[in-house]
Amino acid sequence: MLISELDTPAVVVDLDVMEQNLSRMADYCRAHNLRLRPHTKTHKIPELAHKQIESGASGITVAKLSEAEVMLDAGLNDLLIAYPIVGPAKAQRLAAIAERATVTVSLDSEEAARGISTAMSERGTRAGILVELDVGFSRCGVANETEALALAQTIASLPGLEFQGLMFFPGHFGVAPAERAVLRKQVNEFLDRCLETFARADMPPATVSGGSTPSRYESDLFHGVNEVRPGTYIFNDRNTVGVSAASLSECALSVVVTVVSTSVSGHAVIDGGSKTFSSDRYQAGDGRGFGLIKEDPAAEIERFSEEHGHIKVSQSGRRYTVGERLMIIPNHVCSTVNMHDEIYGVRGQVVETVWRVAGRGKVR
Amino acid sequence: MLISELDTPAVVVDLDVMEQNLSRMADYCRAHNLRLRPHTKTHKIPELAHKQIESGASGITVAKLSEAEVMLDAGLNDLLIAYPIVGPAKAQRLAAIAERATVTVSLDSEEAARGISTAMSERGTRAGILVELDVGFSRCGVANETEALALAQTIASLPGLEFQGLMFFPGHFGVAPAERAVLRKQVNEFLDRCLETFARADMPPATVSGGSTPSRYESDLFHGVNEVRPGTYIFNDRNTVGVSAASLSECALSVVVTVVSTSVSGHAVIDGGSKTFSSDRYQAGDGRGFGLIKEDPAAEIERFSEEHGHIKVSQSGRRYTVGERLMIIPNHVCSTVNMHDEIYGVRGQVVETVWRVAGRGKVR
Repeated sequence: MLISELDTPAVVVDLDVMEQNLSRMADYCRAHNLRLRPHTKTHKIPELAHKQIESGASGITVAKLSEAEVMLDAGLNDLLIAYPIVGPAKAQRLAAIAERATVTVSLDSEEAARGISTAMSERGTRAGILVELDVGFSRCGVANETEALALAQTIASLPGLEFQGLMFFPGHFGVAPAERAVLRKQVNEFLDRCLETFARADMPPATVSGGSTPSRYESDLFHGVNEVRPGTYIFNDRNTVGVSAASLSECALSVVVTVVSTSVSGHAVIDGGSKTFSSDRYQAGDGRGFGLIKEDPAAEIERFSEEHGHIKVSQSGRRYTVGERLMIIPNHVCSTVNMHDEIYGVRGQVVETVWRVAGRGKVR
Repeated sequence: MLISELDTPAVVVDLDVMEQNLSRMADYCRAHNLRLRPHTKTHKIPELAHKQIESGASGITVAKLSEAEVMLDAGLNDLLIAYPIVGPAKAQRLAAIAERATVTVSLDSEEAARGISTAMSERGTRAGILVELDVGFSRCGVANETEALALAQTIASLPGLEFQGLMFFPGHFGVAPAERAVLRKQVNEFLDRCLETFARADMPPATVSGGSTPSRYESDLFHGVNEVRPGTYIFNDRNTVGVSAASLSECALSVVVTVVSTSVSGHAVIDGGSKTFSSDRYQAGDGRGFGLIKEDPAAEIERFSEEHGHIKVSQSGRRYTVGERLMIIPNHVCSTVNMHDEIYGVRGQVVETVWRVAGRGKVR
């Protein structure tokens, strides 16, 4: 089957580009002695997680327990759940996973630690725990080395838990290089204080897990980091290009769409909107646009309805016609893939494979 | 089972409120002699489409062919596909649906009309066609009465097609009453010109299908309109409340979430983000916030990551604790429901039913 025979909208992944992306990241990690633990939230496809392992990853990262369950059922058995597991129901599911796999969880509260400990003890199993640090993204994570050490000591004292180290997410690094250098200095000062504090307490962290998409080929510059968790690198998207973390030629994923209306002057409408792409905004430049049209980069996708993409064609000289097909690079691939039950792997114009997005909708 | 026993995040619908919403709309339509053809993109659940029919709807509306197929398989057999069907593959699927149901399609181009005609003729079946008018939302639709009539005459001349009337979507009516009155005057002048032009050509439209969520209890004020297609009214959301098209007590749908982190000062994190709610923005007021926290309306959900909701708690005096549960009214219910494989119907605190979102992910 050819791409031109797929009904639209259809999500296609250029396998040559994807394979290059996988190799480049694996090479980078080998060169810098970093363990690679890709975040599979980007694709949610066990077959691709296996490809990541084959390319050199030592395990995978997931956000939700239900994603972990999907990956484990597909034979992936070294899992980091980079998400606080809260409440007895989830702690029990975690303990069930821990019986079948090597499981590590990040957390930032004693409540989460105690809940997990109870469930682990009941089942007689164990989970590795990373203490999450807030290095400036202001989402999860403890604020300083004193709190980090106190939480680590609590963890070390609880049955069924094994203090394994520290984790952080520098999600705010999608900025210009000079600004990134300033942020990195702050993060490294925090990391230095933590490493020193933990060394003094005789609890050196075995793992320091860091990195993010915007910081990814610079993750070796974080002090003490020995593991990274990139996600988007497998496909890349308009945002990663926008923050100079990838080039356009490294974007493996596009959505094939059809022009369904040109009747409003200066506009064209495609058969995909927020229910095909997500309504995630552009995180770089002027923040405008909901994707990049490969055939007409000058045109702006100015708005999404649920099933319509509104293209403003006035900036470009291109003439759009009802029935023609276009390829669009989405703003944010992780959210786009999550809209679909299946996506296609293509080589050149040939559709080589169909993957089921087995982890899609796994929110719990 | 009780709501408190559902693992989070979980989408729950208050059945009492939903039933009131259904009755109110059906009463309004009866009182104004409007045919009610609810847009089922909001819920994508055949059981709820049947409830809408039972409450007085004469048929349903869908956006995509694959949604029509799901609804038809569940016994709903009067379908308006309010979306241009373009390309031979889709036209053939439409013809297959037309063999089993009463099907109407809206369009705004000769290309779409000819494609559908070919497929209908090949199967010896028929579809009703509505010519879509652009009344100011600038998405799909022809711009004036001359183009509308020319397209209607082409449709009338093509085999397998039956010109049935006009359709429009006043999606830009989410504004203040005075501004709405100005917009309505413009729309009505356009409708008057169309009705006059079509009458002169001896092609009076049997159907004039109009209305939208923001205009919905004023849809009778559009000239000539005899059918409406409200969608969101079944659940309502923060946006419909924001544009004064519903009150908070008419919001039937909430997402139950758990607080998973409070370690960043002034913030709390819940276990749902853009993959639970969608990242659809607030379309009213200052545009800020990604949902309304029922327990703390003063707090702002200031940002979504994929699986984290970032609550800024500094505006409210409330103290958040890890493990507590909250109920959130999303900005845009249609996009939220579309993220989930199933949602729950509740009465009081009791979970009465689980619905599968059978039309979710049906983008083609």
